[in-house]
Amino acid sequence: MIVVIKPHVAEERTNQLIEWFKGMGLGVHVSNGEVNTVLGLIGDTGRVDKDLIASLDIVDSVSQVSEKFKQCNRKFHPEDTVVQVGDVKIGGGNFVMIAGPCSVESEEQIVTVAKAVKASGAQLLRGGAFKPRTSPYDFQGLKGEGIELLKIARQETGLPIVSEIMNLIDLPLFEDVDVLQVGARSMQNFDLLKELGKTKKPILLKRGMANTLQETLMSAEYIMAGGNENVIFCERGIRTYSDYTRNTLDLSAVPMLHELSHLPVIVDPSHATGLARLVEPMALAATACGADGLLIEVHNDPLHALCDGAQSLRPEEFDAAAKKIRKVREAIL
Amino acid sequence: MIVVIKPHVAEERTNQLIEWFKGMGLGVHVSNGEVNTVLGLIGDTGRVDKDLIASLDIVDSVSQVSEKFKQCNRKFHPEDTVVQVGDVKIGGGNFVMIAGPCSVESEEQIVTVAKAVKASGAQLLRGGAFKPRTSPYDFQGLKGEGIELLKIARQETGLPIVSEIMNLIDLPLFEDVDVLQVGARSMQNFDLLKELGKTKKPILLKRGMANTLQETLMSAEYIMAGGNENVIFCERGIRTYSDYTRNTLDLSAVPMLHELSHLPVIVDPSHATGLARLVEPMALAATACGADGLLIEVHNDPLHALCDGAQSLRPEEFDAAAKKIRKVREAIL
Amino acid sequence: MIVVIKPHVAEERTNQLIEWFKGMGLGVHVSNGEVNTVLGLIGDTGRVDKDLIASLDIVDSVSQVSEKFKQCNRKFHPEDTVVQVGDVKIGGGNFVMIAGPCSVESEEQIVTVAKAVKASGAQLLRGGAFKPRTSPYDFQGLKGEGIELLKIARQETGLPIVSEIMNLIDLPLFEDVDVLQVGARSMQNFDLLKELGKTKKPILLKRGMANTLQETLMSAEYIMAGGNENVIFCERGIRTYSDYTRNTLDLSAVPMLHELSHLPVIVDPSHATGLARLVEPMALAATACGADGLLIEVHNDPLHALCDGAQSLRPEEFDAAAKKIRKVREAIL
Amino acid sequence: MIVVIKPHVAEERTNQLIEWFKGMGLGVHVSNGEVNTVLGLIGDTGRVDKDLIASLDIVDSVSQVSEKFKQCNRKFHPEDTVVQVGDVKIGGGNFVMIAGPCSVESEEQIVTVAKAVKASGAQLLRGGAFKPRTSPYDFQGLKGEGIELLKIARQETGLPIVSEIMNLIDLPLFEDVDVLQVGARSMQNFDLLKELGKTKKPILLKRGMANTLQETLMSAEYIMAGGNENVIFCERGIRTYSDYTRNTLDLSAVPMLHELSHLPVIVDPSHATGLARLVEPMALAATACGADGLLIEVHNDPLHALCDGAQSLRPEEFDAAAKKIRKVREAIL
Repeated sequence: MIVVIKPHVAEERTNQLIEWFKGMGLGVHVSNGEVNTVLGLIGDTGRVDKDLIASLDIVDSVSQVSEKFKQCNRKFHPEDTVVQVGDVKIGGGNFVMIAGPCSVESEEQIVTVAKAVKASGAQLLRGGAFKPRTSPYDFQGLKGEGIELLKIARQETGLPIVSEIMNLIDLPLFEDVDVLQVGARSMQNFDLLKELGKTKKPILLKRGMANTLQETLMSAEYIMAGGNENVIFCERGIRTYSDYTRNTLDLSAVPMLHELSHLPVIVDPSHATGLARLVEPMALAATACGADGLLIEVHNDPLHALCDGAQSLRPEEFDAAAKKIRKVREAIL
Repeated sequence: MIVVIKPHVAEERTNQLIEWFKGMGLGVHVSNGEVNTVLGLIGDTGRVDKDLIASLDIVDSVSQVSEKFKQCNRKFHPEDTVVQVGDVKIGGGNFVMIAGPCSVESEEQIVTVAKAVKASGAQLLRGGAFKPRTSPYDFQGLKGEGIELLKIARQETGLPIVSEIMNLIDLPLFEDVDVLQVGARSMQNFDLLKELGKTKKPILLKRGMANTLQETLMSAEYIMAGGNENVIFCERGIRTYSDYTRNTLDLSAVPMLHELSHLPVIVDPSHATGLARLVEPMALAATACGADGLLIEVHNDPLHALCDGAQSLRPEEFDAAAKKIRKVREAIL
Repeated sequence: MIVVIKPHVAEERTNQLIEWFKGMGLGVHVSNGEVNTVLGLIGDTGRVDKDLIASLDIVDSVSQVSEKFKQCNRKFHPEDTVVQVGDVKIGGGNFVMIAGPCSVESEEQIVTVAKAVKASGAQLLRGGAFKPRTSPYDFQGLKGEGIELLKIARQETGLPIVSEIMNLIDLPLFEDVDVLQVGARSMQNFDLLKELGKTKKPILLKRGMANTLQETLMSAEYIMAGGNENVIFCERGIRTYSDYTRNTLDLSAVPMLHELSHLPVIVDPSHATGLARLVEPMALAATACGADGLLIEVHNDPLHALCDGAQSLRPEEFDAAAKKIRKVREAIL
Repeated sequence: MIVVIKPHVAEERTNQLIEWFKGMGLGVHVSNGEVNTVLGLIGDTGRVDKDLIASLDIVDSVSQVSEKFKQCNRKFHPEDTVVQVGDVKIGGGNFVMIAGPCSVESEEQIVTVAKAVKASGAQLLRGGAFKPRTSPYDFQGLKGEGIELLKIARQETGLPIVSEIMNLIDLPLFEDVDVLQVGARSMQNFDLLKELGKTKKPILLKRGMANTLQETLMSAEYIMAGGNENVIFCERGIRTYSDYTRNTLDLSAVPMLHELSHLPVIVDPSHATGLARLVEPMALAATACGADGLLIEVHNDPLHALCDGAQSLRPEEFDAAAKKIRKVREAIL
C-alpha cells in the first residue's frame, strides 16, 4: 500500500502515522520527495482500512498496490482453470452451452426441453427449483420436487444439471445436483458462499445486479478461501438507466475477468436483456469476445411459462441460435 | 391491468389473447377506440407476467393499474404506522436517533459508546455482531459474543439494541435483540425476509445497493405477508458513478416512501457517504425532508475501529450533530 | 395516449379533465371499465405533457401509444437506410471500418496512419481536429489546421474523412469533410443538431454518456426534422459504476436500435473501454451482434499520442483485429 | 503524480519510462521500496495522460497528487467566493432564493409570477427563453422575445433575472441578463464555457445529467481560466435507475463541493424530482445541508404550463415553502 502525504504537513504528524502503522506490525518505507512524502507499507496490509487512511486530513491519496483477491488472481495462477462437470469441461478453450427453462414446472416440461436442447448441442441442463421473486405473491418454484424432476431429466438425457441455491439450509437437497448456481441477488450472501466453499461442487457465480468486477472477484475468493476451486463466473447484465432492456449486458467484463482471473467466464444473455428476440445477437456477441460458454433460457411454451417467459427461446429458436453460435466460435479460434 | 393492442392488428389475433386471459380466470373489458383496442383485465392479475404480455408482437404497452405491494401500501392503510420498541416510538410524528459503532469490538468499547450516545440523546443503540464484508480476509464480527456484549450495554444504559442479521439460521441468537436489521446486501434475501415475517420483532429494512423503491416496498411486503407489520425502511445511499462519496444518498426516497407507504422511514448518513465529515450535513438534510429517524455510526476511537472507521463520528462530534438535528426537527414541525 | 383514471374518482373531476383535453383540440374516447375509467386520446397528442398528466391526483397512469420519434422510426420506414459516403455504403448489409487517431497531430502522423489503416481494410479515415477535453489545460486539437491535414491524408489515400464538430460556428471549416461526427457530449446540443439538419452531410451521431435509446433517437429526429436523412448512430459506452473500464459498452443497443429505427448503427470500442487491449474483443462482439461498422482508434505511436493514447491500437494490432473482424462478419451472414 | 511500478520489473524498462518522463521536461524522484519502485513526478504533470501511464504493462497504479482544477480549488483560495448580482449576494453566508417559471410564456404570466415570488421573498427571477427540449416537436421557447419579457418583469419588480443560454451565438441577446445559466446538457459544451469566461457575468453552472463532481469542477475551471470568477454551482439531480423520481438529487454534492471549492453551491429541487409535491421537502433538505440558495420553479397555472408543469409550484405553495425554508435556514446558523 502506498500512502501519499499532503504537502506542507508537519513532520511530527507524519511520524505519528508512521508509528501507528508500525504498531500494526507493518514495515514502512519513507520516501521524501520534493513535493510529497510517500510511505510504502510492507507486510500484511490486508488489515489496513484503505478508506480510513484516505480520510485522514494529512493524507492525499492511498493506492492499493496488491489486489485483495489472491486465489482467483491470475497473477498467482497464470494458466486457465478448467472446471470439470462429468465429461464436460468449461474454460481453458472449452466452450459450454447450458440451456433450459427458468423454472422447472413439470416432468413433461423439463424432459421435453432437456431432450430438445441436447439435440441442439447443449451440454448442461439448467432449471430453477428455488426461485428468487421480487414479490411474495409470485410463483416461488417447485423447490425439492423441482430438483427431483431435474434428476429425471438428467437420467433421460445424460445432461448434467445446474440449479440455483438461495439458502445454505437447502444444501442437502442439492447433494446430487452437478452445478450449483449462486444468483445475482445472492452474490454477496457471504454465509452461503462460505458454505459452498466447503463443498467440491462446481459453483456458477452470477455477478450481482450492481456489483463491480472487484466485488465479483472477492465473492469468488470467499468460495475459494474455503477450499473449493471450481468457480465459474457469469455476467448477466447490470442495472443502469437503460430504457428498452431489463439490464445492460456488460460484455467487457468477459475479457477483463479473463485478464484478472484464471477462472472461466460465461454469459447469460436471457436475463441481461429480458427479451427473447435479443438473446441470439447477444449470445453471438458474448461468444465473439471470448466467453467460455452461455446460459440460455429455453422453454417449450414461453406463453405459458410460470416465470420469465418474455425472455425464453422456443426450442427451434435455440437450435437456430446454437448453429450460429458455433460458427462465431469457430471464427475466433 | 390495461393492455393496449397495436393498431391494425387482425381481430382474430386479439381474440386469441382475450381467450388466453379468460383461460386464466380473468375478466376482460374490451374497448375499441378509433386507433387502438384497449383490454382492461379484471380479477387477480397478480399471476399475469406483465413483461411477457408486453413482449407479444401484437401488444403496444401494458400498464399495471394496481401496485403489487398491498400491505405496506398507504392506499389501503392511510394512517402512519408507529413501530414501538420498548418505550420508544418510531414513525407517526415520533423521531428516533439510533447510534453506535459499526462493529461491537469489546465490552469496554460498546458500553463506553452506549453511555456517550445516550447522554447525547440517542434512544436506541446500534452495533454490528455479524458483519457482511466484501473480503473473506476482513474482520467478520464477534458474532454471538457481540450480541452478548450488546445486551450488557443495554443493561448498563437502558437503550434497546439494534443489530444486523445475515442468515436465518442465526435467528435464535437474536431472540433477545430488540430490532433486527436487514442489511443492504440482504434486502432481497427472500428466505430471510419470510422467516422474519414469522416473528413479531421490529425489522429495520435497509434499501439495497441498487434497488428501486418498488423493490424496497416488495421486500417489506415479504415480511408483512408473513404477519409482521413492524417494518422500518432505511435509506442508506445507492450506487452511482459518484466520485467523492461511497454512495449517493437518495433523500427524495424519504417523502416518496412516505407517500407510497404508511411505514416509518429513517436514514443512514454514515454508510451513504462513507465520510465522517459529511455525516452531520446529511443527517440535517434527512431530518429536514421528514425522515422519522437517523442511524448514525459513533465510535470512541475511529482510528482504531475494526471496520468503517472512516465514516464514524467521535462521541463529541455526535453530540454536536444531535443538537443541530433537534433544532432542524423543531424548525419543520 | 391512454390515460387511466384512478378508481373511485368523482365523475365530475374526470369530466373536467376530459373537457381540458377537448380544449386542446383532442378527441377523447371514454371507456368505463369495472374498476377504472380509461381515456383514449385521439389527435396530435405530441403537445400533451405526459409527465404533467401523470402527476394529477386523479390519474393512475399514462401510456404513450405512439413514439415521439417519427422520421427515424422503422414503423414508418421499414427498409434499412443506406448512408453513402463517396463510394462507401453504410447500413443495409454494408459493413464499414472507420479508423484513425484520436487527434490529428501532424501531416506525417495522419498520412502514416491513413496509409496503414487503408492497407488493413479501413474504408474511412477518422481524426479529431476539434477535441472536447474535460480540462481547459489539456490539448484542444489543431482545429482548422487539423482539418487541412485530414484533407491531405484523404488526397494521399483516397479515404473519405470523418471529424468531430463541436460548435455550429465551425461549420464552414467542415464544408469539405465527408462525415461530421457529433460527440457524446454534444448529442443534446440541439442548436447544433438543427444546423446539421440543414446540411446534406452524413452525420455520425454518438450516443451521449448517459442517454437512453429514446433520447438518442430523438436527437436523430432533430437532424432529420431539418431534412437531412443521413444519420448513423454510434454506441460508445455509457457511464456506470464499472471499475476496470472507462465506460460500459452497451451492445444490446445495436439490435435494439435496429429494431426501433432504419438508420445504421456502428460501435466505437475504443472510447467505450478506454483500454487498447479490450478493443479487439469488443470489436468482435459488436460485429457479431450485427453492428453496421466500427470506429477504431489507431495511432502509430500511442505512447506519444497527445490524447487518448491508452485506448489506441498500433497499426499492426489494428491489422490483426481487422482480419478477425472480417471472419466474424462472415460467420454471421 | 505518483507512479507505482509493478514488482519484478526489469530495471531497464523502468529506466526507459523515467527517461520518457524526463523527455517531457519533468523531474523524476525514484524511490526503491522493498516491493515496489515508486516514481514521484515533479513539474507540470498536467500534460501527462494519467490513463495512458496506467495502461502500461509495467505500471501498477498512478495517483494524481494535485487536482487538475486550480482556480476553483479551495486549497489555493480558502475563503468563500461571494457572487454579487445587483444588490444580491450569493455565497459566503448569503442565501439566495431564485424562483420563476420554467418557460417565459407571456408578459402577463412572467410579471404575475415575478410579483408573486418577490412577495414571498425570492431575490432573483428565473425564466427560460431558450429551452433545450428532447423532442424537436416540443415548444422551444420564445427566445429573444422571452428575454424582452423577462426585462419587463425585472422593471416591474426590481428582481434581477436569470436565464439559460444554450449557444454562444446568442450571447448578444443576453447582454442585459443578470445571471446566465448553463444547463445540464451544456455543462460540457466547452466552447460555450470558454466564451462565458470572457464575460464578467455571473454564471449559474448546472451539473450535467451524469457528471462527476470533478468534471463539474473542471467546467467551472473552463470559465474561470478565461478570467470570469463569478461561477455558481447548481446541483439538479443525476441520472440513476430511480423509479419514482425523474432524477436522483445528490445532496452530498453540496458539502463536498464546498469542501473542494470556494464557489457558491445552490440546488434545484424542481428538475431533480420532476414532481411538485417533492419540491418543498427537498428544498428544506438542501437548505439544511448548507446550500447557498435554491432555484425553484413557480408557475401561476401549472396545468397550462407549456413546459414542465408537473414540477412547478403554484405561487401560494411557493409562499408556504419559502416560510419553512427560512425557518430551516435559521436553525442551522
